Amino acid sequence: MAKVLTSRSENYAQWYNDLVIKADLAENSAVRGCMVIKPYGFAIWEKIQSQLDKMFKATGHVNAYFPVFIPKSFFSREAEHVEGFAKECAVVTHYRLKQNPEGEGLVVDPDAKLEEELIVRPTSETIIWNTYRNWVQSYRDLPLLINQWANVVRWEMRTRLFLRTAEFLWQEGHTAHATREEAIEETMKILDVYTTFAEKYLAIPVIKGIKSESEKFAGAVNTYCIEALMQDGKALQAGTSHFLGQNFARAFDVKFTSKSGKQEFVWATSWGVSTRLMGALIMAHSDDKGLVLPPRLAPVQVVIIPIYKSEEEYRSTVEKAHQIKDTLLEHQIEVKVDDRDTQKPGWKFAEYELKGVPVRLAIGPRDLTNNTIEVVRRDTLEKKSHPVTSIVEHVQFLLEDIQKRIYEKALLFRESHTFEAHSWDEFTALIEKGGFVSAFWDGDPETERLIKEKTKATIRLIPLENTDQTGTCIFSGKPANQKVIFARAY
Amino acid sequence: MAKVLTSRSENYAQWYNDLVIKADLAENSAVRGCMVIKPYGFAIWEKIQSQLDKMFKATGHVNAYFPVFIPKSFFSREAEHVEGFAKECAVVTHYRLKQNPEGEGLVVDPDAKLEEELIVRPTSETIIWNTYRNWVQSYRDLPLLINQWANVVRWEMRTRLFLRTAEFLWQEGHTAHATREEAIEETMKILDVYTTFAEKYLAIPVIKGIKSESEKFAGAVNTYCIEALMQDGKALQAGTSHFLGQNFARAFDVKFTSKSGKQEFVWATSWGVSTRLMGALIMAHSDDKGLVLPPRLAPVQVVIIPIYKSEEEYRSTVEKAHQIKDTLLEHQIEVKVDDRDTQKPGWKFAEYELKGVPVRLAIGPRDLTNNTIEVVRRDTLEKKSHPVTSIVEHVQFLLEDIQKRIYEKALLFRESHTFEAHSWDEFTALIEKGGFVSAFWDGDPETERLIKEKTKATIRLIPLENTDQTGTCIFSGKPANQKVIFARAY
Repeated sequence: MAKVLTSRSENYAQWYNDLVIKADLAENSAVRGCMVIKPYGFAIWEKIQSQLDKMFKATGHVNAYFPVFIPKSFFSREAEHVEGFAKECAVVTHYRLKQNPEGEGLVVDPDAKLEEELIVRPTSETIIWNTYRNWVQSYRDLPLLINQWANVVRWEMRTRLFLRTAEFLWQEGHTAHATREEAIEETMKILDVYTTFAEKYLAIPVIKGIKSESEKFAGAVNTYCIEALMQDGKALQAGTSHFLGQNFARAFDVKFTSKSGKQEFVWATSWGVSTRLMGALIMAHSDDKGLVLPPRLAPVQVVIIPIYKSEEEYRSTVEKAHQIKDTLLEHQIEVKVDDRDTQKPGWKFAEYELKGVPVRLAIGPRDLTNNTIEVVRRDTLEKKSHPVTSIVEHVQFLLEDIQKRIYEKALLFRESHTFEAHSWDEFTALIEKGGFVSAFWDGDPETERLIKEKTKATIRLIPLENTDQTGTCIFSGKPANQKVIFARAY
Repeated sequence: MAKVLTSRSENYAQWYNDLVIKADLAENSAVRGCMVIKPYGFAIWEKIQSQLDKMFKATGHVNAYFPVFIPKSFFSREAEHVEGFAKECAVVTHYRLKQNPEGEGLVVDPDAKLEEELIVRPTSETIIWNTYRNWVQSYRDLPLLINQWANVVRWEMRTRLFLRTAEFLWQEGHTAHATREEAIEETMKILDVYTTFAEKYLAIPVIKGIKSESEKFAGAVNTYCIEALMQDGKALQAGTSHFLGQNFARAFDVKFTSKSGKQEFVWATSWGVSTRLMGALIMAHSDDKGLVLPPRLAPVQVVIIPIYKSEEEYRSTVEKAHQIKDTLLEHQIEVKVDDRDTQKPGWKFAEYELKGVPVRLAIGPRDLTNNTIEVVRRDTLEKKSHPVTSIVEHVQFLLEDIQKRIYEKALLFRESHTFEAHSWDEFTALIEKGGFVSAFWDGDPETERLIKEKTKATIRLIPLENTDQTGTCIFSGKPANQKVIFARAY
C-alpha cells in the first residue's frame, strides 16, 4: 500500500495537514479560513463536548445561549478588550440583498444599511455582561455560573485546520460573583477541570500557570492557562481561565446590593476551550501511520475485521465477528465490524491505523478452529493472538492501558524536552532545538518583546509553583523574581 | 400572591410573552430580533436536542459542521432558493474595524472590504452541496446521511420569542442518495422521527402532510411537514422534511458514477426543527398559572419542599426531603429539594407551578409523624397525601401518567377544534372561530392567495391520507381533488 502521509521527520506541518485531511477529520471550505468539520472529526469533538459538559455541570454550571451578533459600540466599552478583539472581525453592515438592477445575481441593498454595525462574536463578554446587568440586583442573585457552546469568528489571515481558523467552535464560561475571592476560586476551579480533562481524556500532560501581561486576555486582570508540548517541540495553549476582576462590571455597569446593603460592582471570570483541542489531540499522539486516539475519546474503540478466502469462510468469520461485537457492546465498548467485501484486509488495516482506532481484532479461518482472535493495539502496533473466551476482559484492559500508556509517552516526551537555560547562548540553542525552556525573566515587557523578536519564542506561562524564585534574567542580566517557560508556539 | 401572568382568555399573545419571560425561558437581547435563551429554557432545549440526536443516530445519521458564512453567489445558483432565502439576511461586507480617525469609537475600515460579501447562513443547502461535490464520486460514496446542530439567521421584521427570531438554533439534516426512491424514503423516515418525537416527547399530537406549492421550501420538489394546533386555535408548523429532487445537485454539479457506470445527478433531502419547538411546547400545554412541561423534557421532574415553623421542624423536614430525593435519584428521576429559608412555601408552590415542574412534594411535621407526603401533580393541580414507603412507584406512575394525559388533553382539544367546511360562509365562520378547517381546494395558487387575503388562513397541509378524495372547491366552486387543512398560523 502506498504511503498516505508525509512523515513527521520530513515535514511536520505537512504531516499534520495530510493527517487531518486523510483521516477525514476536517477540510477547508469555500469560505476563506472557515473549515468543514467532517463526521469522523465531529464525532471526536462530540465526545470532547459531552465529557466537558458533564464536568461543568458537576461543578455547578448551567448552559445558556446568547446572540451571535454584538453591537459595534459594545467593544469600545472596555478599553483593553477593544484592542484585542474588535479589529479583525466579521462586520455585518446590511440586512438585505436584492436582484442586481444592472445585470445578473444579487447585490447588497443600499437601503438596508444597519444604523449600527453588528460584529459576529469573537468572544461574548460584552453582550453577556450587558445582559447580566438586568439579572443581578442583590447578592442573592449571585453567583451566576453560566456556560455557552457556540461558534465564534476571528478574522485570521493565516489559518490552519483546527489550530487557527476564522470560525471555530468552543465553549465559553462567564461567571459573576459577589467577591474577589470567590471569582478567583472559580478561575482556579476551572483551570483544574481543564487540567483533569486534558490529562485523563486527551491523555496530554499540561503545565498550569499564569500568562505574562502581554500574553493575557484583553480585558482580564489575570489569565491562567494550561500549556501542552507537541511532538515537534512547539507549545500549544490548551485552555484559558480568566480572572476579569470588576472590569466588565464597570464597563457595563453591573452592580449588586451586598449583604451589608452597599452597592458594589460584580466580580467576573471567563474561560474557554475550543476545537483547537482537536489539533492538540492529533499532534500529541499520532505517528507516521496516522492518528493515535485516546480510547476515552475514540468514536470507534474497537474494529473487527474478518479474514477469508472462500464464500464459506466469509460467512463463518463474519458471523463470529458479529458475535464478538455483540458481546463487546454489552460491556459499553464502542465497536464496529467492517465486513465490506469491496476492500481487502490489508487496506482495512491501514485505514483503521490512519483513523486511530485503538484496538483492531481480526478473525480468520484458523482463529475459528482455535477459538482465538488476532489483537493489535494501535499505540505500539503490537500483534498477539488471544483466546476468544476472555476477549472482553482483554479489550477492557487494552483500552485502559492504551489510555495510560499514551499519556505516559507524552509525559516522557515533555520531560525529555523541558530544559533549563542558564545563559543567553544556552537559551537560543535550546529554543532552536525545540521544547519548553525554563529561564529567569526580569518581568519587563520590553525584554519579552526582544526575546520574541530574536528567537520567535514567547513566554508560555509562569508556572504556578515558580512564583517565589529569584535569579538573573536570561536576556537583560537584571534581577528576576520569576522563572518562566519559553517556547515557540502554535 | 399577585397574579404573575396575563390570563389566556384576556390576551393569549400577552400570556405567552409573560410566561416566556416570567418562567425564565428567554428574553429579548440588545440586538434587534435576537433572543437570549436563559438557563432554564436552555435546559429544556438540551433535552430536546439530546433526544432528537439519539433518534437521528439510531436511524443511521451522523453529525458534522459546516461554515456559518455562505458566499453571496451561492444563493443565485438555485433559482427558487434565491427567492426564498437570499433577501432578508445578515450581510458581512467587511473584515476589520479601526479607531475612528475623526473622533471616538470604532468605524468600519474601508480598506477591509470583502471581494465577495458573505451571508450568515439562513439554511445550509448551498454550502453543503458545494462541499458534497468533492465527497461523492461513485455510488459507493452514497448515501451521505449528515445532520448539523447550528445557529441560523433570517432577518425577520416582526419577532416573537422562540416563535420567530432573527437568530435561532436548529438542526438541519442534509442527505444525498443514489436514487429518487431512496431520497423519498429518507424524507418520509424523518417525517416519522419528527412525528414520534412530537407525540412521545413534546406530548403534542400532529398531523402529517404535504405543503402546497406556495408554502413549500424554496428549492424543494416537495415539502412534508407536521402541524400542531395551539390552545388559541392557531396552527404551528413543528417540523419540515424536504424532498429536494436533483435541484441542488444540478445547481452545484454533484454527480456520481452509478453501478451501471453512468454519470448521474445525486438525489437530496433536507429537514429541520428549531427552537420554535420551544414555542409549541409552551403553548400546547401551559395554563394561567404557568408552564406545564411533559415529564420527559422537564429539567426538574420533581421538586420537594419542606414545610416548617420551628428550627427543629426545619431540620427534620429538610432531612427527610433529602432522604426522599436520594431515593428518587437512584431511580433516575430528576429531583431537587428547595430548602431555601429565604422564601415561604406558598411562594415556592407558585414558583414551581410557573416553571411547570410536573410533580411537587411537600413534607410538614404531621407528614413526619404519619410517614406521608403531600403530592401535587402540575397538570391537574390535584393534591393527595401518599405514604412515603411507596413514593418512588407513585412518582414513576405520575410522571408517565402526566406525559400521557397532557398528550390526550391536547389531542382532545385538537379533535374538538378540527372542523369540516362545506360552504364559503361556513368556512369563514369556522376560521374566525379558530382551529383546523378541512375543506376542498381546487389546487390553484390564485385561489389559495385569495383565501389568505380574505381570511388570513393558509393551507397548512394536504394530509397524507387525503390525496384521493374529490369534491368542490370551497372558494371557487371548481372541481377539487384534494381536501386540505386551512388555519391561521404562527
